[in-house]
Amino acid sequence: MNQSLKEKLRQYQQRVESAIDVYIPSAQTRPVKLHEAMRYSMEAGGKRIRPVLILAASELFPSDASPEAAAVAIECLHTYTLIHDDLPSIDDSDLRRGRASCHTQFDEATAVLAGDALLTFAFQLLTRAYRDRPELACDLVADLSEASGSERLIGGQMEDVDNEGKPIDAEMLTFIHENKTGALLTAALTMGLRFCGPSEQQIEQITEVGYHMGMTFQIVDDILDATSSAEVMGKPVGNDDAAEKSTYVALHGIEGAHAEAKQHTERAIHAAKALGGNNTFLIELIEELGSRIH
Amino acid sequence: MNQSLKEKLRQYQQRVESAIDVYIPSAQTRPVKLHEAMRYSMEAGGKRIRPVLILAASELFPSDASPEAAAVAIECLHTYTLIHDDLPSIDDSDLRRGRASCHTQFDEATAVLAGDALLTFAFQLLTRAYRDRPELACDLVADLSEASGSERLIGGQMEDVDNEGKPIDAEMLTFIHENKTGALLTAALTMGLRFCGPSEQQIEQITEVGYHMGMTFQIVDDILDATSSAEVMGKPVGNDDAAEKSTYVALHGIEGAHAEAKQHTERAIHAAKALGGNNTFLIELIEELGSRIH
Repeated sequence: MNQSLKEKLRQYQQRVESAIDVYIPSAQTRPVKLHEAMRYSMEAGGKRIRPVLILAASELFPSDASPEAAAVAIECLHTYTLIHDDLPSIDDSDLRRGRASCHTQFDEATAVLAGDALLTFAFQLLTRAYRDRPELACDLVADLSEASGSERLIGGQMEDVDNEGKPIDAEMLTFIHENKTGALLTAALTMGLRFCGPSEQQIEQITEVGYHMGMTFQIVDDILDATSSAEVMGKPVGNDDAAEKSTYVALHGIEGAHAEAKQHTERAIHAAKALGGNNTFLIELIEELGSRIH
Repeated sequence: MNQSLKEKLRQYQQRVESAIDVYIPSAQTRPVKLHEAMRYSMEAGGKRIRPVLILAASELFPSDASPEAAAVAIECLHTYTLIHDDLPSIDDSDLRRGRASCHTQFDEATAVLAGDALLTFAFQLLTRAYRDRPELACDLVADLSEASGSERLIGGQMEDVDNEGKPIDAEMLTFIHENKTGALLTAALTMGLRFCGPSEQQIEQITEVGYHMGMTFQIVDDILDATSSAEVMGKPVGNDDAAEKSTYVALHGIEGAHAEAKQHTERAIHAAKALGGNNTFLIELIEELGSRIH
């Protein structure tokens, strides 16, 4: 990443961190354990990609409302999915972002409830912050809830859990990625653009940006997974172990995955250019998401 | 319950059952297992008190939008809390309403995700149904999310889980009941009244109805629990076993609990009368909730 983009990204991430601190109830709020768990997971860091995308999309055209609360809401949504995914009955992960996962740090009941609370809080926050702009609030609630519902994000997670350890075909892999990862990334862009009072056509255009960006993001993740496990294992990439995981690399090989990522990056940039506006930062972000493998 | 109220209630419950069938995605929706679990839990029956309260409150004054979708949304919210409460890490209940609980019928991962999906669907449905009335949609999302958030419903559940098996004082018991049970019952009334374009004062009045109705509901539940367990155990009510549970009966004795329930019922009716409008059915419902013990 070049220094100028790195610095710009750092500033956006800082805006997100500050907004999280402002909007999430304090850890002293009753019940203390629940709010400690919510804050613990929200403050675990991460790249804050979804809230940064909201901020970037909100700046494509002029707007007259602050997108920070929406940025925090989508991070609450994302964080709840991580807390519930880590539960013993789902992925059973003790670690998240290098520290104890929520149910390990607290207990399983608290992790279930903290996840529920962050999911609910996303919608509390959207209506608290934008109630004087009811059409905007309504669009934001609709975008976020549809993207994270049973036919999108949770649906992708359900198929992922149900197919764990089984060989899956390209269609299933695409279903999982489009929904488990892609839907919320796309929602980040549409939610951001809502602040600019967009036309239906502009929403369609940014949805196309989101689709290709989401696919790039997931394919690159798969390539990084395959590459890093190869380094760790001392084996070449594309080995049998990798083939047992359901990834783009397993299905299409490392070269095929690279080619797919490149194509999706190009299409995302093409759609972002068609949309126009102040799209420099958005295009830089798309390039960065695609270039993590180079 | 007199026959006329019984028949009226049955008609309202039938409206709720039909609306659930219309609005909840079909069990054939992909992922099938997830949508089967959502429908399984939504179709488990129950008294449908919260959605019936929405319908009753929406009829207090003239309105020009149909409250059925909001009624289904609050039942989705309530049902998700039951699914998550039953999980092994929380109440560990294999049975719910006389049949297998969601995680027993399916599996634990599916139950976590089906609960998440119903919680999310409540907000999808509110914005799908009322997007052409954005102020109404926004108020409904705000009422529902605030009532079920970390400082109300989930907060009450957290304190309940954390105090299980411990002796608790009257203040804690009130906190748990006001939030775990009372908040959503009150939200049912405010959400219903939103369809009538209420004044702030009317919202305050119906909130008072909800508060006292919620307290009545919970105290009566505690009395019924104590009475039925006494029958099962062949011991008099108010025994030591009951005292180890944190209930109104344990804290105030059976006579004290009766007196409290009666007082809250009277106050709820008083507030409903002050509110005015077509309040006959609402008052009948309040009386019925209070009279289950007589």
